[in-house]
Amino acid sequence: MAGKQLFIVTGATGGFGSAILRQINLLYGEDAVIIACGRNKPKLDDVTKGFAAGVKHISVDFAERQGLKERCQAIFDLAAGETFSAAYLYNNHGLASDVTRLAQDFDDSAEIEDYFFLNLTSFQVLTAVFLKNFSGVPHTCVNISSKCAVVAFPSMSLYCTGKAARLMLYKCLAAENPEVKVLNYSPGLMLTTMTENFHNTVAVDSTKKTFQAFKEGNLYVDTDESAKKMLGIVKEGSFTSGEQIDFHDC
Amino acid sequence: MAGKQLFIVTGATGGFGSAILRQINLLYGEDAVIIACGRNKPKLDDVTKGFAAGVKHISVDFAERQGLKERCQAIFDLAAGETFSAAYLYNNHGLASDVTRLAQDFDDSAEIEDYFFLNLTSFQVLTAVFLKNFSGVPHTCVNISSKCAVVAFPSMSLYCTGKAARLMLYKCLAAENPEVKVLNYSPGLMLTTMTENFHNTVAVDSTKKTFQAFKEGNLYVDTDESAKKMLGIVKEGSFTSGEQIDFHDC
Repeated sequence: MAGKQLFIVTGATGGFGSAILRQINLLYGEDAVIIACGRNKPKLDDVTKGFAAGVKHISVDFAERQGLKERCQAIFDLAAGETFSAAYLYNNHGLASDVTRLAQDFDDSAEIEDYFFLNLTSFQVLTAVFLKNFSGVPHTCVNISSKCAVVAFPSMSLYCTGKAARLMLYKCLAAENPEVKVLNYSPGLMLTTMTENFHNTVAVDSTKKTFQAFKEGNLYVDTDESAKKMLGIVKEGSFTSGEQIDFHDC
Repeated sequence: MAGKQLFIVTGATGGFGSAILRQINLLYGEDAVIIACGRNKPKLDDVTKGFAAGVKHISVDFAERQGLKERCQAIFDLAAGETFSAAYLYNNHGLASDVTRLAQDFDDSAEIEDYFFLNLTSFQVLTAVFLKNFSGVPHTCVNISSKCAVVAFPSMSLYCTGKAARLMLYKCLAAENPEVKVLNYSPGLMLTTMTENFHNTVAVDSTKKTFQAFKEGNLYVDTDESAKKMLGIVKEGSFTSGEQIDFHDC
């Protein structure tokens, strides 16, 4: 196939996002063009220093309503005019929910809407805009999912709800588009800023103990190991489009 | 136990909502106080004519952001000062999604937000406010769910996504509150205004055929039969809180 492969990675400057960048570079090297969406440019420059892959950077505010569609389009415009053999969207942006409170403590509709806007609506719009770009090129959409999309963890209701919604949306996307590859990937519990925040603030004992056991048993998944596995699954292409695959199950 | 039983039913004036009202009246008669939330008062009066159960009516706009929490509280204020032996919330309001389009056709964030506000955020806020009322009285929260919460149907992505989100939210609610009974009830495919609309406009052939088969085989579930079964399950109380129960599986 002619052309390089294009990778768009959101939430790219930290945690699992950075690991995705590193593993793309290791696996594809100069055959890859990466568009990294993240708001901390110096940190991103650090992460991608010495990459053989081409890296473009864009700062995108996925929490702001006004002009979201245009901001999403601006991401893909960075690759306009080039020819690619494949285009991959790694939808990794998102925000941790407040885990100090229970479901019944969320009664402020503006707060709930803000959460779902960033974690669900912007995810949907980005996907829709992505699929309108790079016509004729095979598209792969990856949802960075979670075990929380399928298991209800006490005091993580907003997080679980948003993840369950994203999973179903991508299942529908897969069911509607046999020509698009859709992966819901649950990367395992990793020691990132988000999980540390969960760990330190979670309200319910049973969930706190789950985090505690991971910390004490040193069971956290390495971000690079998980990203490598995910990229391998996508490259291999043998997964059932739309299904959720968990790091621990493959 | 002292006092009557209180039933709050949203989306009460049509389809499955009306059937819930009728079946509450049949099952509990004058032991029930029903607060029916619906915007068509004359239609509601028709449905509840001759009821032995007490009926109060309130028109609630669940689509309007401003003052949602206060509007939810106003529902429960209708029962203030009375003593109840149990309080049940039947969360039945919602809107059909546009099924003429596929997931990738939804790129207007305002449209997506409006959909999730009515079908998810208002559902969450109503539940939260409900649980703050009627202190000391056993609470039961019922999500009128759907098979679409667990199965991805092509061209019904918004609907499926919203239903999957509600299901997970209520699973979390159950996991967090052993003292609250939480039922996710999938009533089966019924011939309501919503399903007729789905039937007539759905974009994808496979989903259209599913609806067609139901119509031709006369397989639609009767709304009253399904509501009766649901109320029986709740009254019996033998379900596992948080799990989804389908009309066809019980």
